[in-house]
Amino acid sequence: MTEYAPFDKYLDAHLDESIEELSVLSAQPSVAAQNWGMEECAKLVSEMLEKRGFNTQIMPTGGAPVVIADRPGARSDKTLLFYNHYDVQPAEPLELWDSPAFEPTLRDGKLYARGVSDDKGHITSRLFAIDALLAEEGELPCNIKFVIEGEEEIGSVHLPEFIEKNQELLAADACVWEFGQVNFEEVPMQYVGLRGICYVELSVETAEIDIHSGLGGSIFPNAAWRLVWALGTLKDENERILIPGYYDSIESYTERDVEFMAALPDPANEYKTRYGVKSFLNDIEGGVELRLAEVFQPTCTICGLTSGYQGEGSKTVLPAKASAKVDFRLVPKQTPKQVLEQLRAHLDEQGFDDIKIEFLGGGPAARTDPDDPFIKIVVDTAEDIYGMPMQIVPMIGGSGPNYPFVHVLNQPVATAGCGYPGTNAHAPNENMRLDLYLKHAKHMVRVLKAFSEE
Amino acid sequence: MTEYAPFDKYLDAHLDESIEELSVLSAQPSVAAQNWGMEECAKLVSEMLEKRGFNTQIMPTGGAPVVIADRPGARSDKTLLFYNHYDVQPAEPLELWDSPAFEPTLRDGKLYARGVSDDKGHITSRLFAIDALLAEEGELPCNIKFVIEGEEEIGSVHLPEFIEKNQELLAADACVWEFGQVNFEEVPMQYVGLRGICYVELSVETAEIDIHSGLGGSIFPNAAWRLVWALGTLKDENERILIPGYYDSIESYTERDVEFMAALPDPANEYKTRYGVKSFLNDIEGGVELRLAEVFQPTCTICGLTSGYQGEGSKTVLPAKASAKVDFRLVPKQTPKQVLEQLRAHLDEQGFDDIKIEFLGGGPAARTDPDDPFIKIVVDTAEDIYGMPMQIVPMIGGSGPNYPFVHVLNQPVATAGCGYPGTNAHAPNENMRLDLYLKHAKHMVRVLKAFSEE
Repeated sequence: MTEYAPFDKYLDAHLDESIEELSVLSAQPSVAAQNWGMEECAKLVSEMLEKRGFNTQIMPTGGAPVVIADRPGARSDKTLLFYNHYDVQPAEPLELWDSPAFEPTLRDGKLYARGVSDDKGHITSRLFAIDALLAEEGELPCNIKFVIEGEEEIGSVHLPEFIEKNQELLAADACVWEFGQVNFEEVPMQYVGLRGICYVELSVETAEIDIHSGLGGSIFPNAAWRLVWALGTLKDENERILIPGYYDSIESYTERDVEFMAALPDPANEYKTRYGVKSFLNDIEGGVELRLAEVFQPTCTICGLTSGYQGEGSKTVLPAKASAKVDFRLVPKQTPKQVLEQLRAHLDEQGFDDIKIEFLGGGPAARTDPDDPFIKIVVDTAEDIYGMPMQIVPMIGGSGPNYPFVHVLNQPVATAGCGYPGTNAHAPNENMRLDLYLKHAKHMVRVLKAFSEE
Repeated sequence: MTEYAPFDKYLDAHLDESIEELSVLSAQPSVAAQNWGMEECAKLVSEMLEKRGFNTQIMPTGGAPVVIADRPGARSDKTLLFYNHYDVQPAEPLELWDSPAFEPTLRDGKLYARGVSDDKGHITSRLFAIDALLAEEGELPCNIKFVIEGEEEIGSVHLPEFIEKNQELLAADACVWEFGQVNFEEVPMQYVGLRGICYVELSVETAEIDIHSGLGGSIFPNAAWRLVWALGTLKDENERILIPGYYDSIESYTERDVEFMAALPDPANEYKTRYGVKSFLNDIEGGVELRLAEVFQPTCTICGLTSGYQGEGSKTVLPAKASAKVDFRLVPKQTPKQVLEQLRAHLDEQGFDDIKIEFLGGGPAARTDPDDPFIKIVVDTAEDIYGMPMQIVPMIGGSGPNYPFVHVLNQPVATAGCGYPGTNAHAPNENMRLDLYLKHAKHMVRVLKAFSEE
């Protein structure tokens, strides 16, 4: 306890300043999907790092730039890499926010803004931990690097290639991931695996202009119907993906995964309350079965549909165009390339060669060994802050570009962060709980110290 | 010829003034679906009628008001009723207009604006004909009434009840319908039947808020998928409507209908060119087969789809809500009530009791006897203007509230108007050809005179 008391004291005393910095960062829009504010936000992040004495570079990628930074440590040759992203999800639907998405607002111990948790609060809370180390010791305990991309929310389109090309710049002994959270029982979670993703837009055009539906209904092809029928061939009402061979090469969970999952609390009631959902798919009631289905099952999710008239009341129009956003979550051994090929072949086979497929981003799944020493450091140092060590989750439903970190940079990747189940990432009223923000900074101080002294 | 020369001369000389009046009317938005400008437009129409000495009333309906007007004739006790509507379709998508939708613009002998053809140009061209009659004769040749509603584009929600309640006010010997047009060979068409319509919004809600697709994809119900699957049970890829009993009670076409259709030109090439469509549904190539399929076949058309994220790029969200606009065109003997009942029963039977059905308007099909003497007047008087009599079409694909005119007011209903196939009603760049506008006014002078003298 005593060892960390000065750092904790510093963090307790300076929380307001760090939250102010987070407010400034969150007020800067940086919506990758809309290419809105990307350069400005990269510059802001870079300046925040330079203020802490980091050497920084804003590096081009072909899309939004990557900010990289490093500062040597005083007492260890080891290097820790923080992976973060400065881009955020679109804020729409705007009308569902209680305060404007890009005007950070404090209410009830939480800061509300788009990106405040995913992922800007993780950037500033880590800088906050670094502030505490520098204030108390004048130097960092180990080398610290940051790689902060601007395309995470659109599938990290350019990051794998960037990592491939910049392996030396990004070399490190371990990596702390961009996110982490406590679960609904306030237990800190250690996620050692992430699903992959293949995100596509399916679109079809059946005419050059919309046609009066009275004229066209029985003789002209209808883009909306083509799309509905094509989508209907992808997945049945029992959630079975109908693309031939889709389940052939996938890696299922192990007995050990089941053990990890069984040690976790049942999320069923919490999910039902939080999202206002009455039941889960396939008659699953909860427990291990729900946890396994959540992450070890490939998915095919319609994220959006658009065609024709969508306003109030009626418009009698036969749409010339229709499109859908579809998100395939990948389990180990699946790759976006394979999914794209299977999807194209399937649509063609089903008579839907008129449906275009645009790949909007993705990457394979990857997992870190739960017994890696770095994972143990991150898990054990949490106890001092959260009253218990982190609980290991072998795989989660979400995705991220951990594949090149694990398999190209060969780093163990640990998750740790200040999220919680009500953080509303990707939804209106995204928020950051200030108590968890402070805890994460304290946790990071301990991780950096323990890692350096190992 | 000589008989009509003074009227034609008047019309030739005053076209600009009438087009100016049409511009004023078209500049006033009146989008029923968006409840935008309805009262203002009703007032404007009423003032235009009063200027011609009509007694007018703006009557409430529960929705947009109906404008009714009448002026007695000097030389005949017969009464002609004009049915028109002052509401217009939504102008969206606005970016596809070459000039703003509510700023009427003259280009190449056409006036461009939303509603300029459907139906405001029909209102002002009929007033223009009345101006000619009043200018040359000081009086009208017969009693003239107008009924001008404000909800035609949203399915004439309140008109049938309005007609039921105001039969005496609307009593007349014959009715001229709100539209009419020449075909792509410049032949004036007499449409004696209209399909019915049942327009619904199908919607489903699977959660209270959108869910991160990484979390939710394999365990939470997805509103977009529920909608896609439900729609998929309504119609198969061969355009067969799958609702049980849907085709049981419908009235098919007669030998006589086939004869009328066979006398009409083949629209196949014109349709392909106009809409940029490569082929027609069910391998139909054209001719009588295309004409019969176009109007005597019940339809189920998706007019719009909306769910989740629809912006640029990707957003990994599992939508809580999804909805579709669906337009069923009805052939004789089908009623909206029956369709709604069959649809509900079918969705329930298929396991989609979570899909809500909202009825957005409609009415049954109706037809006028092609041998009615009034039809003959309208058909024959066209020859003097168009160089040929009108060509009779026993039924068209579009819909309108002709059922209560034919079956409650017991009036023969003739179509005549200034439309043409490139008028872009319900699409961007709606336009009115000035030459056809003038012709319609001249035709109406002849119809009114011939009808009065019959």
